[in-house]
Amino acid sequence: MGAVRTKRMPRAVREQQMLDAAVRTFGQRGYMAASMDEIAELAGVSKPLVYLYLNSKEDLFTACIRREAAALTEAVRAGVRRELPADRQLWEGLGAFFAHTARNPDGWSVLHLQARTHGEPFAGEVAAMRAEIVAFVTQLILAAAREAHRDPDLPEGEVAGLAEALVGAAESLADWANVTPGVTARQAAATLMNFAWSGLGNLMAGRPWTAPEAAH
Amino acid sequence: MGAVRTKRMPRAVREQQMLDAAVRTFGQRGYMAASMDEIAELAGVSKPLVYLYLNSKEDLFTACIRREAAALTEAVRAGVRRELPADRQLWEGLGAFFAHTARNPDGWSVLHLQARTHGEPFAGEVAAMRAEIVAFVTQLILAAAREAHRDPDLPEGEVAGLAEALVGAAESLADWANVTPGVTARQAAATLMNFAWSGLGNLMAGRPWTAPEAAH
Repeated sequence: MGAVRTKRMPRAVREQQMLDAAVRTFGQRGYMAASMDEIAELAGVSKPLVYLYLNSKEDLFTACIRREAAALTEAVRAGVRRELPADRQLWEGLGAFFAHTARNPDGWSVLHLQARTHGEPFAGEVAAMRAEIVAFVTQLILAAAREAHRDPDLPEGEVAGLAEALVGAAESLADWANVTPGVTARQAAATLMNFAWSGLGNLMAGRPWTAPEAAH
Repeated sequence: MGAVRTKRMPRAVREQQMLDAAVRTFGQRGYMAASMDEIAELAGVSKPLVYLYLNSKEDLFTACIRREAAALTEAVRAGVRRELPADRQLWEGLGAFFAHTARNPDGWSVLHLQARTHGEPFAGEVAAMRAEIVAFVTQLILAAAREAHRDPDLPEGEVAGLAEALVGAAESLADWANVTPGVTARQAAATLMNFAWSGLGNLMAGRPWTAPEAAH
């Protein structure tokens, strides 16, 4: 941690240290309350150096969102073997998602809580990542429908809604798992799989829940 | 809208007009970007009057959160007949939830997006409301388990996780329904019921999804 060693670091390495410190500070304090002084101190560098490398608090926050969004989607993508049946792909994807958010609670807080409420360009960055994950889940649901030979019975709008529901459930469970002692990433994935797949599985098998007005 | 008529209004009525204007402004612009000038103008009153009645931007925002949280929980509570079976209660509760969030998109944005990211006391206000809704859903799931005589097979942590998943799915679907043309409150409720209840129903019937490692 000495100044001499720090000074010899290549720019890319030091930039990552700044981003590590920034993600931690933004994630724990929130975007508005986080100070550049605190981030520089945590990164072990001077504040002017942070500005030299990352330009402004806004740009630093954007860089954090981009790095954390890329890491999360990459973790989910790498966790899924696309040749497996749809339910196995979802299980692996959820496992990778909860493992990553559990290992990176501050990054998750930046993406899910901070980035969405401070206007553009932050909200747009994270909306693009979320759209990518929703698209991935939508493809899984469509693949499951094909496997069950039930495409025509599941209208496009319904599939989109199911994907939104599943992603929202995963977001909520990740928040919960990160603050609830004793809940492992695997348990969170199993809970959501139980909730989601048994439900989707029924849908695919042509057993939807029936609204009372329609039934009587 | 004339000054004379406005001046004769009782304080309670005028305060509600200020809150209406504030919810709309906070919901559409975000807490930070919303200005007291804009809120006063939209409410048709002077800015000093807003300060006189609501004290500060912080207090005004807190009052908005409280009013919108109370209205949402009241709408859900009023929509549910507690004597019905658990799935019917959930159906009615979801119907009331999506109808309310569709009618009050700015209030929903204040609660779900704005209130959670600007620190205390705002986050605490909305966390209390969310905890109340999670508790309600938890009770429904436990009631469903009792109806299916399966209490012992559904551990407490699993029920808590299922309730978090369901509430997160509802939040995500409400966001989605509010920005997706042609999605009605009833459709959103039916999609979530399909997703959630068929899944929970399977769980209650002792048919959980089985993780591959456990199955082989």
